[in-house]
Amino acid sequence: MALAHKGLEFESVPWRFTDKEAIAFSGHGTVPVLVDGERTVADSWQIALYLDAAYPDRPPLLESDQARGTAKVFKFWCEQNVHPPLLHIIMPDLFANLHERDKAYFRESREKRFGATLEQIGADRAGALVALRKGLDAVRPVLVEQAYIGGAQAAFADYILFGAFQWARVMSPARLLEPDDPMYVWRERMLDLYHGLARNALGYPVWA
Amino acid sequence: MALAHKGLEFESVPWRFTDKEAIAFSGHGTVPVLVDGERTVADSWQIALYLDAAYPDRPPLLESDQARGTAKVFKFWCEQNVHPPLLHIIMPDLFANLHERDKAYFRESREKRFGATLEQIGADRAGALVALRKGLDAVRPVLVEQAYIGGAQAAFADYILFGAFQWARVMSPARLLEPDDPMYVWRERMLDLYHGLARNALGYPVWA
Repeated sequence: MALAHKGLEFESVPWRFTDKEAIAFSGHGTVPVLVDGERTVADSWQIALYLDAAYPDRPPLLESDQARGTAKVFKFWCEQNVHPPLLHIIMPDLFANLHERDKAYFRESREKRFGATLEQIGADRAGALVALRKGLDAVRPVLVEQAYIGGAQAAFADYILFGAFQWARVMSPARLLEPDDPMYVWRERMLDLYHGLARNALGYPVWA
Repeated sequence: MALAHKGLEFESVPWRFTDKEAIAFSGHGTVPVLVDGERTVADSWQIALYLDAAYPDRPPLLESDQARGTAKVFKFWCEQNVHPPLLHIIMPDLFANLHERDKAYFRESREKRFGATLEQIGADRAGALVALRKGLDAVRPVLVEQAYIGGAQAAFADYILFGAFQWARVMSPARLLEPDDPMYVWRERMLDLYHGLARNALGYPVWA
């Protein structure tokens, strides 16, 4: 979404959890990794900063110091308040739809990280759904007033939150939002951006 | 803080909860109310928008669409996740330090709003303190990297969060943050801004 926002051409490379060798050159064990000519940048926040610095004539992802600071707070907030309930909701589907090759790695690494079995993490989907929707109370009223968190145009803050929903979408059929929720309308808008870039992304029904 | 940020001279008028007549001209029953010549603007968010529109040559409180959108999310987040635990922590002091004239109004309006007695609201201060500090986990890492949420300069997002702390500070001696917390360091910085504007504000020990 960030690359499309900048109007940059790109090629995306399919990747699985255990393909560590494929990204070893980056010095990081996790995606995203951006390769731009001679430059390699890992981590989505660092990639956003890099893209704005390298392509200042393109639409900004983080258009000012104030936007950068509040978007970074928003990033941590999403990681702490949106990702966890989402993970709890989609865990059964996420694990079921993983490639067989990734399952052992995923189970071991996540069970260690969270100190619970995958089955325990995914045990209270209903409670996690309530927490997810309630957590969005801070964002919802803004999206009643304007199309995107960024205003009339989507901004990196929109992509931060949308990325979580897209992650869930390509792995799980779980119904996260109801159609009368402004968050649902916003998510539809995000799915439509850049000629349906995210809507057309491949998900579990295709690779299963 | 917003007026000082804009470098505008102002006179502040002491006000109590039950002084409804004093602000009746604004059409609002709550503060803040700004009077700027012929214009009257109520509500802190509206005041920030007004000040930026009316004084575009002064330092911006919300310097771009992206900054405005994420700051508004931050505002709702503060109202939903910082104000409630703060209120629970300071409630006993808040009520004790109110002017006698305001006590009946405060008790009736707050007990109706929260569906609980003031004593119930203030019953679990220790739990509320944990919730407050944990809630700040999204902001804290940003303030490790930079002086203010707005970057090298304070922005309206800083004033939104600081306003909550200042409200607590003028009403209660409760220790909300520990000195080794980056939030404490940031709050000290905010208290120092504009020649100690907030640090020098009168609080309960003076008017008690």
